Amino acid sequence: MRVIMDAFGGDNAPRAVVEGSVRAVRELDADIILVGKEPVLQEILSGMDYPEGRIQIRHAEEVIGCDESPISAIRAKKDSSLVVGLTMLKNGEGDGFITAGNTGAYLAGAFRILGRIKGVKRPALTPFIPTDQGVSLIVDAGANNDCKPEHLLQFGIMGSIYMKQVFGIASPRVALVNNGTEENKGNELTKAAYSLLAGSGLNFVGNIEARRIPYGDADVLVCDGFVGNVILKLTEGLGMALYDNIKAMFTKNLLTKLSALMVKGGLRAFKKKMDYTEYGGAPLLGIDGAVMKAHGSSDAKAFYNAIRSLLLFEQTGVNQKISEQINCIGREEIADES
Amino acid sequence: MRVIMDAFGGDNAPRAVVEGSVRAVRELDADIILVGKEPVLQEILSGMDYPEGRIQIRHAEEVIGCDESPISAIRAKKDSSLVVGLTMLKNGEGDGFITAGNTGAYLAGAFRILGRIKGVKRPALTPFIPTDQGVSLIVDAGANNDCKPEHLLQFGIMGSIYMKQVFGIASPRVALVNNGTEENKGNELTKAAYSLLAGSGLNFVGNIEARRIPYGDADVLVCDGFVGNVILKLTEGLGMALYDNIKAMFTKNLLTKLSALMVKGGLRAFKKKMDYTEYGGAPLLGIDGAVMKAHGSSDAKAFYNAIRSLLLFEQTGVNQKISEQINCIGREEIADES
Repeated sequence: MRVIMDAFGGDNAPRAVVEGSVRAVRELDADIILVGKEPVLQEILSGMDYPEGRIQIRHAEEVIGCDESPISAIRAKKDSSLVVGLTMLKNGEGDGFITAGNTGAYLAGAFRILGRIKGVKRPALTPFIPTDQGVSLIVDAGANNDCKPEHLLQFGIMGSIYMKQVFGIASPRVALVNNGTEENKGNELTKAAYSLLAGSGLNFVGNIEARRIPYGDADVLVCDGFVGNVILKLTEGLGMALYDNIKAMFTKNLLTKLSALMVKGGLRAFKKKMDYTEYGGAPLLGIDGAVMKAHGSSDAKAFYNAIRSLLLFEQTGVNQKISEQINCIGREEIADES
Repeated sequence: MRVIMDAFGGDNAPRAVVEGSVRAVRELDADIILVGKEPVLQEILSGMDYPEGRIQIRHAEEVIGCDESPISAIRAKKDSSLVVGLTMLKNGEGDGFITAGNTGAYLAGAFRILGRIKGVKRPALTPFIPTDQGVSLIVDAGANNDCKPEHLLQFGIMGSIYMKQVFGIASPRVALVNNGTEENKGNELTKAAYSLLAGSGLNFVGNIEARRIPYGDADVLVCDGFVGNVILKLTEGLGMALYDNIKAMFTKNLLTKLSALMVKGGLRAFKKKMDYTEYGGAPLLGIDGAVMKAHGSSDAKAFYNAIRSLLLFEQTGVNQKISEQINCIGREEIADES
């Protein structure tokens, strides 16, 4: 498999992208194409040890910054690492694409350049959040701020396929994020989505209240992109704030520092659990191509894990399955309506 | 001031309600009327020491359970502690009302029995969440699942008044919960609400991303009730889950237990910070009456703190100020539109 990497996306680019890629070609069955300023990439690569020929460079002169307006950026910067990389994927010059850059530009670029899988109404950005039982997938976490009930149904279908194929969960528990567990709870959107999900044939476990999200009661959390974004960012923010509090508690004086030594293992495990870099990238489910978003502050390990996820995504045929199931369920729905 | 207490609402009722009330009449300038089954309340009170005559009992035979359907419960149970208590407030037999019972029934009851302050479109349930700087007020946290932009404007106005009057913050920072900090970010609702808030004359500090909520960047968090409910419950759930993790880390073996002793002060401070009982009750802003919801698992201290908040609410004339400001801004808005 040939993975196209946006080498100039993210806070730690390009070095972390290159380092993660080098590790990937050494440890995984992947070839890498780094897209970005060739001289810079050449310079970084020159000091590194990796199997000959498994990393290539494709020059792209421009970089889309984090704060640029997404749509105008992808229109104006045709020679940016993001636009060039996505176009290469579209043209079959690679099997998948990863970026840690501007999320909005990534979404807009993937929509315009790759397009949707036939039958998918709204592709969804689907990151993981850590839970007490491992991770849960949020569908959607920000690609769609205003949703209709049928979008949420498709989110459930796509999320379930992803967790089954890539995570090997036989029957992923799909839950609807809601403000009560009873069937009749919620806003207009979730009330209508509930019955669609209940009749979908998915392993729909009903509504989940936000209070239970950290306990991992569901594998797939279905919600509109606005709510998903709140869940993702609040989890991240609270994790950081609480970790800061714990750190402050331990660094207060000599005695507390000594205490930290005694629970070192536990602290490390806790930090690892909250660490987004463990969980690879967030796919954009429903896009006609294997594309993944790594966290903006990804380090080399995070890029390596994103590449690993992308390989699984491609090898297990996630998009093929999405296409089959969406179009099959689509037909049933139409039959029901007539 | 005479505070009417639903003595049969909440997980620890009636004992915790009575204990909190006894502490209140001893320490605060408040008289208490306990509403509920008289023999039970008499029995609990009989062993307690408090100023003669400052606690009265009003008998109510029925109790509305946590899982009962709100609207049918308040219709069917006219002799419940909730309905009797709210009706007493309506009739001027007390100056404020507190319950820790069924939130839906409380909302429905307050709407029907007390009604809205003239000009207020949608009353809002407004609990606090702990932050690194103290607390932030969520407006709304679940009374209104589907909102219009003008509702969010009123939430900002009411929340600002509450934080100013009850918390003594001269110019409360009002922020709109959104999925980006830029003005043009968000869903249809927040985009439209942004310009209303920006032109409101409030100390509007713009959009806040959920990631920054735990750091206390705003005093008032404006959002629809569905999103507010997610923020409230996710904060609570993550706080509990992370505390469980920390506890597990410290109770692993003798060495880690020893370590816990050394950071005991820090742990206690952390727990206190995350403790909802510190922050009293959540008012229902916009209702024509001083009503407050205490957390379902309130203990005596939480009830005491709720009574203290209610006194401040009433003494500082929150509802009077809401009425003045909503109707003043309402007129300006109409003038602008014509």
